Amino acid sequence: MGENIGATARVMANFGLSQLRLVNPRDGWPQERAWSSASGADWPLNAARVFECVEDAVADLNLIYATTARPRELQLPVLTPRVAAANLLAAIGEGLKVGLMFGGERAGLETADIALCQAVVTLPVDERFKSLNLAQAVAINAYEWRMTVAQDVPPAFRQGPPPADGASMMGLYDHFERELDNAGFFHPPEKRPSMVQNLRSALGRASFSDQEVRTFRGVVTALSKGRGRVLAKLASQTSADPERET
Amino acid sequence: MGENIGATARVMANFGLSQLRLVNPRDGWPQERAWSSASGADWPLNAARVFECVEDAVADLNLIYATTARPRELQLPVLTPRVAAANLLAAIGEGLKVGLMFGGERAGLETADIALCQAVVTLPVDERFKSLNLAQAVAINAYEWRMTVAQDVPPAFRQGPPPADGASMMGLYDHFERELDNAGFFHPPEKRPSMVQNLRSALGRASFSDQEVRTFRGVVTALSKGRGRVLAKLASQTSADPERET
Repeated sequence: MGENIGATARVMANFGLSQLRLVNPRDGWPQERAWSSASGADWPLNAARVFECVEDAVADLNLIYATTARPRELQLPVLTPRVAAANLLAAIGEGLKVGLMFGGERAGLETADIALCQAVVTLPVDERFKSLNLAQAVAINAYEWRMTVAQDVPPAFRQGPPPADGASMMGLYDHFERELDNAGFFHPPEKRPSMVQNLRSALGRASFSDQEVRTFRGVVTALSKGRGRVLAKLASQTSADPERET
Repeated sequence: MGENIGATARVMANFGLSQLRLVNPRDGWPQERAWSSASGADWPLNAARVFECVEDAVADLNLIYATTARPRELQLPVLTPRVAAANLLAAIGEGLKVGLMFGGERAGLETADIALCQAVVTLPVDERFKSLNLAQAVAINAYEWRMTVAQDVPPAFRQGPPPADGASMMGLYDHFERELDNAGFFHPPEKRPSMVQNLRSALGRASFSDQEVRTFRGVVTALSKGRGRVLAKLASQTSADPERET
C-alpha cells in the first residue's frame, strides 16, 4: 500500500536510512499516495528501486535478515532488533552489503522469501496482540539501527572470505534443485515447495563464500552426472597412473 | 486525531501497555475513527480516561517523562528511551506511579506541559528530518519499555530442534565423501584431505538438525544413485504407498 510505503520512508528518514527497495508494489509504482504519506521524506521514495521478485531484490546482498514472527517451517536464528542491528553493523564493517526484509502488512513474508535470509528479526510483541503495523516495525528496527550506529562499536573482523551474494546462492539453489528434480527427489510433488524451502534455509545458514558456492556446484555436478562417465574416466586414469590414491 | 489515538492504542497493545489517558481530544471523545484505526486493540480505547487539562491527567503520578525534542526553555535531564524505560521500571519497583507524556502530532507538547515532567525523553532522530509520527514515537518507547520489563527475552534465541551430534554429522560426511569418491570428485588425489576439510567446515557451519541430516543423506543418495534406479524405486513406491514422505 502506498500509505505504508510513505510511512516507511518517513521513519527511514527519521533514523538516517535512505536505501529503499520495493518488490512488486501492489498498486504499481510510483504511487502518489506514498509521497503524500511521507510528510516530506521524499528522498527514499525518489531513489527507491523496484524489483519484480524478492530474489532480484537481494541479488547483490551478502547478509539479509527477515523481519517477521518466528517461522515454524524454517530453522533460522531468531534475533531481537538490537542484536540484529549490531550484527548488521559488524557485517558492514567487514565490507558486506546487508539488508532488512519486511513483508506487506496483511500477508507478511512468504516462507520462500524468509528462506533466502540468514536469520529472522522478531519484535518482542505481546502474544495476545501481535498485529504490528508495517511502518512501526520499520521504525523500531530503524531506531535500533541508529542507536547502534551512534555508539562506538569496535571494528569487527571475520576470518576468511565474505559470504556470497544472493545471486550466487540462487544459482547454487537452482542448480541443486534442478538435479534433485532430475533424480526424482521431490516426492510427493506437492511437497516440493516446502522441501525446497527447508533445503535453502539449511544451506543458507552456512553463509557460503564464493569459493564454497563453486565447490558445492562442483559437488552437485559430480554427484548428479552419473557414475558411468566418471568411472570410465577413473578406469583410464588408473591404468595410466597406478600410483593414484582413491 | 482519532487515527493517531487508534494507532497509539494498537502499539500499546503490541507491547503490553493498556492505560491510556487523553487530554481534551481535538474531535471529542469517543471517536469512531480511533477504534477503526486500532486494528482490534480496543481495550486501551475502551478504558481510556479523558481529562480536561494536563495537570489533571498527571495529578496522581509520581514520575512523568515528556517525550519531545530537547526543550530550549527548560533545564531538564534529556534521556534516551532506553534509559527512560529503566528509570520508570525502577520507580515502579519503589511503589511509584509513572507516566510517559506525548504531544499531538502537529503541535507537540507545550512548554507548560513539559514543565510538569521530571525529564524529557528524546529519540535519536536525524537532525535533517525530525518530523516523527506520534504513533511511531509511542511504538519506540513502548518497545523499549517491553525490552526492559521482559528480562526473559533473550538477546538471541533459536527455535526448534538442537543441532545434530558429531556422530550424526560424521555419518553424513562419510556418506557424502564416499559418494564423491565414487564420482571421482576428489582430484587430484593428494588434495583429497584438504577438500574434505573444506566441505566439512562449510556444511558444519549450518548446524543441521537431525532431521536435516536425514534430508541431506537422502539428497546425496538421490543425486548419486543415478536417475534410472531412483525413478524406478519411486514409481514402485508411489503405487504401493502413496502417503510416503521423502
